[in-house]
Amino acid sequence: MTMKWVDEVYKGVLRTGFRVRRRLFKGRSAFQTVEVVETAGHGRLLLIDGMTMVSDRDEFVYHEMIAHAPLCVHPRPRRVLVVGGGDGGTVREVLRHACVESCALVEIDSLVVGAAKAFLPGTGRALGDRRCRVLIQDGVKFVRETAERFDVVIVDSTEPFGPAAELFGPAFYRDTSRILTRGGIAVSQAGSPFYEPGTIKNLLAILRPVFRVSLPFLFTNMTYPGGLWAFTFASKGPHPVRDLNRRRAAGLKGLRWYSPAMHAAAFTLPPFLQDALGRNPRFARRIEGFK
Amino acid sequence: MTMKWVDEVYKGVLRTGFRVRRRLFKGRSAFQTVEVVETAGHGRLLLIDGMTMVSDRDEFVYHEMIAHAPLCVHPRPRRVLVVGGGDGGTVREVLRHACVESCALVEIDSLVVGAAKAFLPGTGRALGDRRCRVLIQDGVKFVRETAERFDVVIVDSTEPFGPAAELFGPAFYRDTSRILTRGGIAVSQAGSPFYEPGTIKNLLAILRPVFRVSLPFLFTNMTYPGGLWAFTFASKGPHPVRDLNRRRAAGLKGLRWYSPAMHAAAFTLPPFLQDALGRNPRFARRIEGFK
Repeated sequence: MTMKWVDEVYKGVLRTGFRVRRRLFKGRSAFQTVEVVETAGHGRLLLIDGMTMVSDRDEFVYHEMIAHAPLCVHPRPRRVLVVGGGDGGTVREVLRHACVESCALVEIDSLVVGAAKAFLPGTGRALGDRRCRVLIQDGVKFVRETAERFDVVIVDSTEPFGPAAELFGPAFYRDTSRILTRGGIAVSQAGSPFYEPGTIKNLLAILRPVFRVSLPFLFTNMTYPGGLWAFTFASKGPHPVRDLNRRRAAGLKGLRWYSPAMHAAAFTLPPFLQDALGRNPRFARRIEGFK
Repeated sequence: MTMKWVDEVYKGVLRTGFRVRRRLFKGRSAFQTVEVVETAGHGRLLLIDGMTMVSDRDEFVYHEMIAHAPLCVHPRPRRVLVVGGGDGGTVREVLRHACVESCALVEIDSLVVGAAKAFLPGTGRALGDRRCRVLIQDGVKFVRETAERFDVVIVDSTEPFGPAAELFGPAFYRDTSRILTRGGIAVSQAGSPFYEPGTIKNLLAILRPVFRVSLPFLFTNMTYPGGLWAFTFASKGPHPVRDLNRRRAAGLKGLRWYSPAMHAAAFTLPPFLQDALGRNPRFARRIEGFK
């Protein structure tokens, strides 16, 4: 088969293309198109509606950061909820923590879970772990209705449109707060600081009235448009830098992106992003704590 | 004119494409092809031999970091040499420092300087400053033969092949050390940590026997392949983190990427890069200082 390129076109002005050896899977669910390709330089690549989600080569960056940032700050995380993240990479990292007794994954689209289990063993394998429970269900509905409580909620979603739109809304975060235990932490995928700081700003504006602490933090994937990307950290108590459990973080073995030093560095924001996030004095004071 | 894409193909496996409104300039010198295009989302873009060098939208990241990292560590930088960097962005940042009396730019290719002056005013304008002296000359030959001395040398080069190959060799860095004053600092463009950690490793292996301190540091451009990119910091004395002049760094106005906190965070390396750079005990000890 001849080689070709698969391109993610981002905001109509940038495209990121991966040389592809062959397509392993393409399917369409009620929600989206799911595709797995074997690339020439990045291993297997999962695309949803043409957007790069996970590549074998660099998924460690995203998944280590989204999981260990909250789990190394919470004093004793036992019950974890992942909303989205049907590829399994976040669950894999959550389960590195021996103190975690159970990890529920609520993914709206069974096609993502099926494709990951069949074609992305590096991440999908974790979904078969005995501590992991996969629920195919709307995450917004789940957090609204569940009687369960969690110590950490990780919102591992696609971008703020299509099936994930409500995951970027205030009702979802009020419900998330309700199902979090005392001192609970919620971390969310928040988009590109270079191209759409507005997404981060909106998410922080939603989190601020609901949580005691709400701060963005950064990481760099090689396969996401612009490289630099953000998460938000929101908690009912613990501070992401002051309350970092360095011993627990340093005890995690085999990591490639996350470390206690990388954790602290991730909460350092460049001035352009501080400016874009505005001058709310309460929020600004928090950020200045890291200068 | 219809819109089209200009793509940088990187290592045959990744391509980064920019939507282009029109081409402003294309020329070929004895050394390379130089092109300036007007993009739809990134302002003007300079490409050399098809590789992305500078875009209006994100050049601040690279230029602030490569200039202010050494200039905020050196106790009193008065004379600065930039090797390469014919676009003018590094000179612009160097000249923000009032203590800098002169900045020499040694660029091998007059076509780059000409294109920058004519088509990239955001960076090229700095080349007309009264404190800047532009020399069209081979940088390797210049550092070998000059009788001048400099407090800071910034190697703002293209990749380690073609006209820039010798800028990644041991002879060049022995000469650089010779023309540096006591406590002098040399900073160099060092490639992609994700895709070619070997370039950083080789450069550090060359710097280590010549300089007292040699450390990599990181930044994230949106227009470079993979986003994450590296510089090396080498000095005859000052340590990049311990000797940071925070007051001078905080006094720089209008910056969008660099700050004292970003400076310190940039020297934090992810474990995958620490592993790739190997376990030279002397070097490892230095890195651990930042954990």
